Amino acid sequence: MISARNQFKGKVKSVKLGEVMAEVVVTVGDLEFVSAITRTSAEALALKPGDEVKAVIKSTEVLIDKP
Amino acid sequence: MISARNQFKGKVKSVKLGEVMAEVVVTVGDLEFVSAITRTSAEALALKPGDEVKAVIKSTEVLIDKP
Amino acid sequence: MISARNQFKGKVKSVKLGEVMAEVVVTVGDLEFVSAITRTSAEALALKPGDEVKAVIKSTEVLIDKP
Amino acid sequence: MISARNQFKGKVKSVKLGEVMAEVVVTVGDLEFVSAITRTSAEALALKPGDEVKAVIKSTEVLIDKP
Amino acid sequence: MISARNQFKGKVKSVKLGEVMAEVVVTVGDLEFVSAITRTSAEALALKPGDEVKAVIKSTEVLIDKP
Amino acid sequence: MISARNQFKGKVKSVKLGEVMAEVVVTVGDLEFVSAITRTSAEALALKPGDEVKAVIKSTEVLIDKP
Repeated sequence: MISARNQFKGKVKSVKLGEVMAEVVVTVGDLEFVSAITRTSAEALALKPGDEVKAVIKSTEVLIDKP
Repeated sequence: MISARNQFKGKVKSVKLGEVMAEVVVTVGDLEFVSAITRTSAEALALKPGDEVKAVIKSTEVLIDKP
Repeated sequence: MISARNQFKGKVKSVKLGEVMAEVVVTVGDLEFVSAITRTSAEALALKPGDEVKAVIKSTEVLIDKP
Repeated sequence: MISARNQFKGKVKSVKLGEVMAEVVVTVGDLEFVSAITRTSAEALALKPGDEVKAVIKSTEVLIDKP
Repeated sequence: MISARNQFKGKVKSVKLGEVMAEVVVTVGDLEFVSAITRTSAEALALKPGDEVKAVIKSTEVLIDKP
Repeated sequence: MISARNQFKGKVKSVKLGEVMAEVVVTVGDLEFVSAITRTSAEALALKPGDEVKAVIKSTEVLIDKP
């Protein structure tokens, strides 16, 4: 169990590979999460559309915007 | 418009104030986001339960967990 | 109003686009801020030199160096 | 020389100590930076008002807001 | 399997609880890692000295200092 | 002296340059740290295999995983 308070189950929608970084889009219900990880991580996890994954976010990384 | 790719509309559920930091829980549909911001930020925004806010997360802060 | 305590008004000096990431340099008075965001964010904001923007930084991301 | 692209020389304006975290405000010319670090860090550096320090920020932590 | 490239097995040395945040020290061989997480996370994981844990760090959070 | 609590002396093992980002692997004893920094930072520090460096990590960026 990891300490990150934000863990959301979803499905990989797309993976875009750059030379060093990769952009992964994850669908969680009606929401879409965008994640930028290293390309080597994306390859180590063999991420591809349809994969069941969790988007994981440490609470110190969440900002609040009040209109 | 802020560059963060992850912006989710929700409602403040709770605010816990420490001396330096504050923990804010935001309900977004069925999901709960936990945010740790400074107490001075929470006070500057006058955050309280029921407030309509957005949880905002930079994509470089989103990890992917594949079981 | 976003919770991030560090918000500095400036002007975009340059935008360098990679495949996944983009580097944006923002001039704030005498200072230069360097930001690495996703390319899709840079394109969504249509960032180009001369744009008036704010550099926004969460206080938990600021280190202190005392010589 | 540290890899962080954002390094700004300034002076400590205030230090607020909590149990675990500390909030440090640094004046850089006309700007004010707010930093949240651990209390043990603030004590290890013996931070106090008037200290000459640098605020240091990794470029992946800088968001861009375009009104 | 989580995407973070830095995962180091160790043992909890100490846990200090504040109102909102907690400081956890983890011994990994000869090294000591310091982690600041929310108190609720520390309690959810029931962290205590001697626990076998991993320190997990996303590669975008690692700076390089070259003397 | 920088406020980051995690500072580990090691040696650069490899540097992979992308257009915007770079991936740097640092060997610290038996451990390997992976760092994603901007290409311009990697070039400013002239990072190459064999360089003696420190991997530096702010404690708010360290997650704890308890199996």
